[in-house]
Amino acid sequence: MRTFMDEDFLLSTESARKLYHRYAEGMPILDYHSHVNPREIYEDRQFENITQVWLGADHYKWRQMRANGINEAYITGDAPDYEKFCRWAKTLEMAIGNPLYHWSHLELKRYFGFGGYLCRDTAREVWEQCNAMLATADYSARGLIKMSNVRLLCTTDDPADSLIWHQRLAKDDSFDVRVLPAWRPDRAFAPEKEDYTEYLENLGEAADVEIDSFASLVQALCKRMDFFAGQGCRIADHGLEYVMYEPASEKQIEGIFAKRLAGGTLSRQEEMQFKTAFLLAMGREYHKRNWVMQLHYGVKRNINTRLFRALGADAGVDSIGSVAPYAQLSDFLNALADTDELPKTIVYSLNPADNAAIGSVIGCFQDDTVPGKIQQGSAWWFNDHKCGMREQMISLANLGLLGNFIGMLTDSRSFLSYTRHEYFRRVMCDLIGGWVEDGEYPQDSGALERIVRGISYDNAVRYFGFPVRRSAGETAEGEENAESNG
Amino acid sequence: MRTFMDEDFLLSTESARKLYHRYAEGMPILDYHSHVNPREIYEDRQFENITQVWLGADHYKWRQMRANGINEAYITGDAPDYEKFCRWAKTLEMAIGNPLYHWSHLELKRYFGFGGYLCRDTAREVWEQCNAMLATADYSARGLIKMSNVRLLCTTDDPADSLIWHQRLAKDDSFDVRVLPAWRPDRAFAPEKEDYTEYLENLGEAADVEIDSFASLVQALCKRMDFFAGQGCRIADHGLEYVMYEPASEKQIEGIFAKRLAGGTLSRQEEMQFKTAFLLAMGREYHKRNWVMQLHYGVKRNINTRLFRALGADAGVDSIGSVAPYAQLSDFLNALADTDELPKTIVYSLNPADNAAIGSVIGCFQDDTVPGKIQQGSAWWFNDHKCGMREQMISLANLGLLGNFIGMLTDSRSFLSYTRHEYFRRVMCDLIGGWVEDGEYPQDSGALERIVRGISYDNAVRYFGFPVRRSAGETAEGEENAESNG
Amino acid sequence: MRTFMDEDFLLSTESARKLYHRYAEGMPILDYHSHVNPREIYEDRQFENITQVWLGADHYKWRQMRANGINEAYITGDAPDYEKFCRWAKTLEMAIGNPLYHWSHLELKRYFGFGGYLCRDTAREVWEQCNAMLATADYSARGLIKMSNVRLLCTTDDPADSLIWHQRLAKDDSFDVRVLPAWRPDRAFAPEKEDYTEYLENLGEAADVEIDSFASLVQALCKRMDFFAGQGCRIADHGLEYVMYEPASEKQIEGIFAKRLAGGTLSRQEEMQFKTAFLLAMGREYHKRNWVMQLHYGVKRNINTRLFRALGADAGVDSIGSVAPYAQLSDFLNALADTDELPKTIVYSLNPADNAAIGSVIGCFQDDTVPGKIQQGSAWWFNDHKCGMREQMISLANLGLLGNFIGMLTDSRSFLSYTRHEYFRRVMCDLIGGWVEDGEYPQDSGALERIVRGISYDNAVRYFGFPVRRSAGETAEGEENAESNG
Repeated sequence: MRTFMDEDFLLSTESARKLYHRYAEGMPILDYHSHVNPREIYEDRQFENITQVWLGADHYKWRQMRANGINEAYITGDAPDYEKFCRWAKTLEMAIGNPLYHWSHLELKRYFGFGGYLCRDTAREVWEQCNAMLATADYSARGLIKMSNVRLLCTTDDPADSLIWHQRLAKDDSFDVRVLPAWRPDRAFAPEKEDYTEYLENLGEAADVEIDSFASLVQALCKRMDFFAGQGCRIADHGLEYVMYEPASEKQIEGIFAKRLAGGTLSRQEEMQFKTAFLLAMGREYHKRNWVMQLHYGVKRNINTRLFRALGADAGVDSIGSVAPYAQLSDFLNALADTDELPKTIVYSLNPADNAAIGSVIGCFQDDTVPGKIQQGSAWWFNDHKCGMREQMISLANLGLLGNFIGMLTDSRSFLSYTRHEYFRRVMCDLIGGWVEDGEYPQDSGALERIVRGISYDNAVRYFGFPVRRSAGETAEGEENAESNG
Repeated sequence: MRTFMDEDFLLSTESARKLYHRYAEGMPILDYHSHVNPREIYEDRQFENITQVWLGADHYKWRQMRANGINEAYITGDAPDYEKFCRWAKTLEMAIGNPLYHWSHLELKRYFGFGGYLCRDTAREVWEQCNAMLATADYSARGLIKMSNVRLLCTTDDPADSLIWHQRLAKDDSFDVRVLPAWRPDRAFAPEKEDYTEYLENLGEAADVEIDSFASLVQALCKRMDFFAGQGCRIADHGLEYVMYEPASEKQIEGIFAKRLAGGTLSRQEEMQFKTAFLLAMGREYHKRNWVMQLHYGVKRNINTRLFRALGADAGVDSIGSVAPYAQLSDFLNALADTDELPKTIVYSLNPADNAAIGSVIGCFQDDTVPGKIQQGSAWWFNDHKCGMREQMISLANLGLLGNFIGMLTDSRSFLSYTRHEYFRRVMCDLIGGWVEDGEYPQDSGALERIVRGISYDNAVRYFGFPVRRSAGETAEGEENAESNG
Repeated sequence: MRTFMDEDFLLSTESARKLYHRYAEGMPILDYHSHVNPREIYEDRQFENITQVWLGADHYKWRQMRANGINEAYITGDAPDYEKFCRWAKTLEMAIGNPLYHWSHLELKRYFGFGGYLCRDTAREVWEQCNAMLATADYSARGLIKMSNVRLLCTTDDPADSLIWHQRLAKDDSFDVRVLPAWRPDRAFAPEKEDYTEYLENLGEAADVEIDSFASLVQALCKRMDFFAGQGCRIADHGLEYVMYEPASEKQIEGIFAKRLAGGTLSRQEEMQFKTAFLLAMGREYHKRNWVMQLHYGVKRNINTRLFRALGADAGVDSIGSVAPYAQLSDFLNALADTDELPKTIVYSLNPADNAAIGSVIGCFQDDTVPGKIQQGSAWWFNDHKCGMREQMISLANLGLLGNFIGMLTDSRSFLSYTRHEYFRRVMCDLIGGWVEDGEYPQDSGALERIVRGISYDNAVRYFGFPVRRSAGETAEGEENAESNG
């Protein structure tokens, strides 16, 4: 019987423990995809209490509280923060086997030194201990980031965004963690939304381009990309129902765009043709700039209209979508590869049943640009737990080269979420250590160090080309490996 | 090496064994979904031999015998019962890893005290031992139910059914297990069937309503629901190809229904519109009555026409269906939630690849009616084995609150199937015990007792609101937890 | 900690080790599906070096090298063989958890006696050792086959093929391994291909039939089937996007075929109607001849146009397809079963998410022709690894009779691939041994021997009816089991 979440949590073999403690544990964090607010970092926000940090914007937790029959007043409503916290503590007891159980306790351990477990009986103690610590200067936004050994993080930003907070952070010598923008043009990609033309006006103003055609839309976006690149951006991201491929001629696309500008409503086919043209255009521009294109798909959002009306988006009422035509995904990648304009790409589906299909598709588009040019993203959102991570990595290993995987990201709004990297690294070391223990991979400590440090951190540095150094463990030989492949 | 199916069968850790033997093993059974025949209970049927019980109506076993190359005469045909039994014994040997191997042996152990294993060499011994015991009064239908510690069971009944056997059972003081009807209006939902209008006549007679419009169909069903409610019914059930959502106006639905009444054939779209309207109407009525709505879908039935012609439905020639549009499932639930008329709902798909999608959808419709208002049903039919149960519970735990799961049901026609609850509880305790053993959940015996007893029995009592008491292990504190959430 | 790939590789329990070493290890190989070249066997080809054997045609390895960022020159291009080999050795290090890691090392151990592991440091040593051995007479094509304990193997052949090499092999007394043709009429099934009518001319010539109608196409194929049967053929194989069922009248089919013969382009519906008619006709003919029909589907091929243009088919740019309508699969099987013309059939999908659906469908079409008449094929292509095999067998066990499974095949172009049978048998014995160890199946050594030897070899002999003897372990009792079922 193992102690609850001790230092060897999730590490079931001696080999796993060695790999984690020797190679993974001390690695810095490169958090290439998050939703933290750059203004809160610049202004170095302090939090009044643990409810603010934990329940303020975390729709993962909201869902579980609803599943425990809690009234909405105690979730997103006006109930006092302590009352909300107690409801969460009681809910957690029922969340056996849920990643929130582990994430919550990792956060309590690492940031607040709380070694017990949160339940109705300990709620008061945890509340007081966390709040006292949150009141100290060390527990500001920047303090938490530094405490987490983060070396670089990317936010998620609209092309029309001024990036004012990124600019200020870049000039602030007192904070040495790099905070870079990431490009997410979802609003420019959504002609089905009512406020689309309004948005185009904002974008046009930001870019100083009059957007009166599809060509000028792309032109405006290119100008903003250059601006983003100037702020260190190297990553784009797209949120998609699915990766579509319905090609149309330039003239057709201009016609569709003109129709929408004139206030018309696009047919489903026109929408898909527009979106295909948009994604292709973006892909080409990313390729020119050596940016990475992230494709997040397989989601049906805001499916509970009542809660969406009351709380807006990101209220915990999103689900796995039912349509993921791999045929279109591969046709889309092929269209870019065919003219040698396919950028580095990371594919994430919300449906775990897609793992093998994705692995089989991405393996068809690898080339000598960089090891693992086309990646399957780390287990995402509803799959972001021990089993989901394990299955994603096993699928990756079965179908491709796990050793080149760029690993984990937080995808979070909270400054306490960096322990998810620890959680991921433990799962990864347990998997790899298990193979060594079972005689399925040799005890080659050099190779194992390269692989574990690579997936923890070094592969992402190499892949994105960020201006940070790889780990000390990255040997000259390792460098040689990367360079001399071609 | 462990002994074959000993008292610690499926319990691989010390923690699992403790949880099972302390908390789960002694719990009564609430079998909220079965296909047993209430007349056989009322008349307290005796069985002539083990072949009658085991092979009389069990299409799970028929499939395996066919897969062993057995001639149909020895399966559903005229061969002598002992010959059939021997064929089954030989088939079982090849069924390594199949749940029938375990179910069969649990039944032999628990009901007949047979500790060996059934194979060609022991077939004669088992045949004689079982038949001798079946001839005794203790082994009648009622005897087997009482022996199984069943406190309440639900049958599956058509709205036109007189419920005569339920009525008689309710008045019979000599049997203290409650036998309640469950509402399954599949025939009223099937305008694509040839005998649809004939069925409507039966239903109209039973309800004393002339069914000449969709509105009067709903009216007739409402009257029958009230009648069923008077017999203690609290559960409805629907067998669906998939959960559809194709809304249409009241007028359109009346037009479609009139067309069918007049003998017309509905288009696929009309059929789906009718079915959507039907399900919505039923959902609202269930909500009014605080009934639970079960949705069973993902099946393609009677796919082998030859055997269907020869043997009729439930002949072991059904399969997993290929269409399960989650988008429509969520739109359907949303349509009811939007007007606050969504009843407590249990969702079962026959396709195990749907687990994660279901978990993500149901989490969007939870509210403070009851903890776990929307449930994913226990691993169903083709998934009703160790792996399927384990995967369903892991998925549930990853995406929601396993602690609120209402657990197992038999879904069976046999009075020997109650050991499936034992099988389920062992799988459940092994899963939860494994987490405790690995330090993934604390050794909080109070919480673990609540969770294990809850999933075994107490959660179902609370969820359905049946007039039976929860287990002794249900503490005052537990009650408080349930009541005070809102 | 276990030694790297020692004699108990993948065998995690004592029971597993016993089963493997006692029953599975020494069994001969019946390789009923491969892509080896019969001419190379007849001419007894020698190989110059390990790169030729390993990288000459193995698109599995090509994919991994691309995923490691290797330039195409070192994969399929003009770089020197030793340079290619070194790139492969470096790639292998990153392939932790990949089946190629294990396959490669099993081949190095079994054929070349190399006990270490291949990496950049050992590449030179392995290169020299393998090449020296490949230069000896024992390492010819025939030598490797005999070294592998192969008793019979099937190649994959077009109906128009002269089978000249099979004929010569049959007459060659110096080689006692049977090399039989297998029937793969994919080209006759592909009216969407440009060269379809040219192909029909070749086929017509081979059959001495003028193909001017669908009926004469079937007639020509029947003549060729008889010719193949004369060479010992008992297996047909179809590569399909998916198993379709769009029935049409004879007249419609003749119209569609005439349109294609006249140079017309078929609509998607016409193509599917033609293909349905073709498959039905073939199925009936296979049934007459007691042949086995293999259905391989779920593939989208040549999805990277650039590499397809450069390298042709089988270049490592195929993927899992997104469409697999089980409803059509079951309708197709039913159409043949309905007239009692369904041949023995093996179903393989490339999508591992299909396992349960397949298991549920095939269970509906079993009969007393032979135990396990309809089989789910062994984990195929992208699923051909420890996890995929394990999942396929667990699914099979859950839904049908694992004991009747016909087991492994190589599906390979290489004469070193027979160690995949060893790999498979280890996975199988580990699974079954684990059940025995856990008390889930009794320690019935007779039954276990029948099951393990059956899946390793004997079941395939019985199933296909090949003229080779079953293993010594096949007892009279076992024979009786097979014969007396009906």
